[in-house]
Amino acid sequence: MRQYPRSLNRLIHELSKLPGIGGKTAQRLAFHILSLSNNEALSLAEAITKAKENLRYCPICGNLTDHEICTICSDSSRDKSIICVVENPQDVMAMERIREYNGLYHVLHGAISPAEGIGPNEINLKSLITRLQGGDDVKEIIIATNPNIEGEATAMYISRLIKPAGIRVTRIAHGIPVGGDLEYADEVTLLKAMEGRREI
Amino acid sequence: MRQYPRSLNRLIHELSKLPGIGGKTAQRLAFHILSLSNNEALSLAEAITKAKENLRYCPICGNLTDHEICTICSDSSRDKSIICVVENPQDVMAMERIREYNGLYHVLHGAISPAEGIGPNEINLKSLITRLQGGDDVKEIIIATNPNIEGEATAMYISRLIKPAGIRVTRIAHGIPVGGDLEYADEVTLLKAMEGRREI
Repeated sequence: MRQYPRSLNRLIHELSKLPGIGGKTAQRLAFHILSLSNNEALSLAEAITKAKENLRYCPICGNLTDHEICTICSDSSRDKSIICVVENPQDVMAMERIREYNGLYHVLHGAISPAEGIGPNEINLKSLITRLQGGDDVKEIIIATNPNIEGEATAMYISRLIKPAGIRVTRIAHGIPVGGDLEYADEVTLLKAMEGRREI
Repeated sequence: MRQYPRSLNRLIHELSKLPGIGGKTAQRLAFHILSLSNNEALSLAEAITKAKENLRYCPICGNLTDHEICTICSDSSRDKSIICVVENPQDVMAMERIREYNGLYHVLHGAISPAEGIGPNEINLKSLITRLQGGDDVKEIIIATNPNIEGEATAMYISRLIKPAGIRVTRIAHGIPVGGDLEYADEVTLLKAMEGRREI
């Protein structure tokens, strides 16, 4: 026996494909899973399949949802005249945690990055333009992409695209450390960044 | 939306139950899983359920197997006169990696630890005695429990139990750093430990 039984090897192999999980960690996780009750292990496996089955992107804003339209887009109490543009669904959650912003969102699912061959057509941008041409009277677009090269490039691109239409385009302030990741910013820093936003 | 959609929350919750996986890591893993193709995600979920379904303990040695009897116990080319006693299946793998040992194993699934209320009856020890009383002519028991307090206590206990039967009982040498974990020892250290084993 130079190898673990096949089912165990397969589990270790599958786990080691996850980001940040090396061989030793995958092995430790696999043995932990074996030590779980059948119900607990099943619950984990089911959570994976159910998440893949149920979750989809909101056709309006691109946020993750397990409904037809996401809870933010379908919430009538939210201010439909402001749209905050973020790179991914985690950023929506980060924004929501400051409990201050009551507008809508638009999730790009990435940022423009010529180096990686990601142009404006590779991110969820077209649907933002469609939203602006639609019935809602949008007065402001807050661009909350990450404060790194790709995020800034995306902000500049969107700004140039939308400003001619007479809509106010703002960028969140650099309260967030430059080069950092919006997803991991604390609430206060993020609030400061929202308050200090300026026109671009 | 103060929370992620339900299916996503559930997945994050399930992942964060794994050892060494905190909230942020669970979130990162969950989003990675969502980014997988349906086939890839299904493959991960299936690996978990299949591992739980197929894997059992070998009724002879207690090692993990997906057959009736494990591949080592059922291998006729192995020397049935030596049994190496280890704490868990990971240790069997560690031993096998040195490609030197050709005897059998006995997996205790733990070590005696009065502090944690684990006595000789709480580990897989009775079946070792049964094996020695059985037909096989066992000449040596190598005790390769971890070189820490519990492992040493277990070694002493087993030695006292078996020696009266006239079987040679040896302990792997302390080539492995004391307090360390057998599972993570490198092959050379483990080989040295096997070579330097002495009678107790």
